Amino acid sequence: MNPIVIDRLQHKLGYTFQQQALLLQALTHRSADSEHNERLEFLGDSILNFVIANALYQRFPLVDEGDMSRMRATLVRGGTLAEMAREFHLGECLRLGPGELKSGGFRRESILADTVEAIIGGIFLDSDIQKVGQLVLTWYAERLAEISPGEKQKDPKTRLQEYLQRLHRSLPSYLITQVSGEAHDQKFTIHCHVSGLSEPVVGSGSSRRKAEQAAAEQTLIKLELQGE
Amino acid sequence: MNPIVIDRLQHKLGYTFQQQALLLQALTHRSADSEHNERLEFLGDSILNFVIANALYQRFPLVDEGDMSRMRATLVRGGTLAEMAREFHLGECLRLGPGELKSGGFRRESILADTVEAIIGGIFLDSDIQKVGQLVLTWYAERLAEISPGEKQKDPKTRLQEYLQRLHRSLPSYLITQVSGEAHDQKFTIHCHVSGLSEPVVGSGSSRRKAEQAAAEQTLIKLELQGE
Repeated sequence: MNPIVIDRLQHKLGYTFQQQALLLQALTHRSADSEHNERLEFLGDSILNFVIANALYQRFPLVDEGDMSRMRATLVRGGTLAEMAREFHLGECLRLGPGELKSGGFRRESILADTVEAIIGGIFLDSDIQKVGQLVLTWYAERLAEISPGEKQKDPKTRLQEYLQRLHRSLPSYLITQVSGEAHDQKFTIHCHVSGLSEPVVGSGSSRRKAEQAAAEQTLIKLELQGE
Repeated sequence: MNPIVIDRLQHKLGYTFQQQALLLQALTHRSADSEHNERLEFLGDSILNFVIANALYQRFPLVDEGDMSRMRATLVRGGTLAEMAREFHLGECLRLGPGELKSGGFRRESILADTVEAIIGGIFLDSDIQKVGQLVLTWYAERLAEISPGEKQKDPKTRLQEYLQRLHRSLPSYLITQVSGEAHDQKFTIHCHVSGLSEPVVGSGSSRRKAEQAAAEQTLIKLELQGE
């Protein structure tokens, strides 16, 4: 891999690997090489969850466990990690197999998000939990400063349901319209039907639940745009 | 709380709190006091997940992410934590409200498991992540030495049986309700009856054994959901 690109990434991350092989592995999708990043992702995911849980615990001494959980879900979800990956210009550093090189849209987002977790796992192995914890908190500084408990953390399906109940409308229905991809890499497409919108709203994701949440989010946006 | 009981607990845990108030809070169910243990449980859960993920990562350098996930799920699930709670004689230390004092069965199991997580959160706040990590690994030493990826994970029928035994309930019964298809391509449908669920739980598969395992798995999920 181009050393200039790697240096730029390490600069953006705020961390230079002692063991460059760990960074390389973190950037390697399973489609590219058998030394891929999934084990690092497993480790990094658990570190991220702990670091963010601890940050929320310290920052919100009076907030209950449910609100902390919802805030954490917002901070660690795939969309947030993919945003962060874009801030790191991670896309240009990924090692992908030929099949994945062309992949765009949702697949791409999910690879980016997973790679951020793998990088966290790699930095931990290259240093220690304190160091990686501090670093993750600097990456999250703005998002942690902005987040607050309450309404915004409820998941989209819950918010949509509450929205419709306030209007005394019937509840939404979710239909799976398509499932594609192989067992380990499925994509679900969901149609969300609500009264008030003539057409179903489409959402997709790597699980039924994620696809439903995506569809609910889009449905809320449409209903709100429509001024209902 | 009786200081002898508390000393005995700390001896079992292998840790003496600097801040006894943290231990007291970790032992306090929400039914007993507004200073209860749910925030500590949230924190402790994330620590436990990280510590076990890291232990499995180190111990099984060649095992894939899916197997590590399954092993972790086995190690951190409520039943395992409740077992550990019993090894600590935690039951006698719980601070419960009048409604919960009488609760037995699954509720009790789940309170015990949550309290172990809260204690982990409390020890972390009282010390640091290294210290709590080392301690958790000593609690898990035997279980980590025994666990292995793949086949050897306990099958659902075994887990269901052990689950019901812990609650002193009668064992499940499995009834074949349907066999369809030709000799080489049969489908078995099984009903699993357990005390605590009013309806039998259905499972199906290409052999009687697989159908029973499927039914047992679903039954466990229902029992666990119901207990929450």
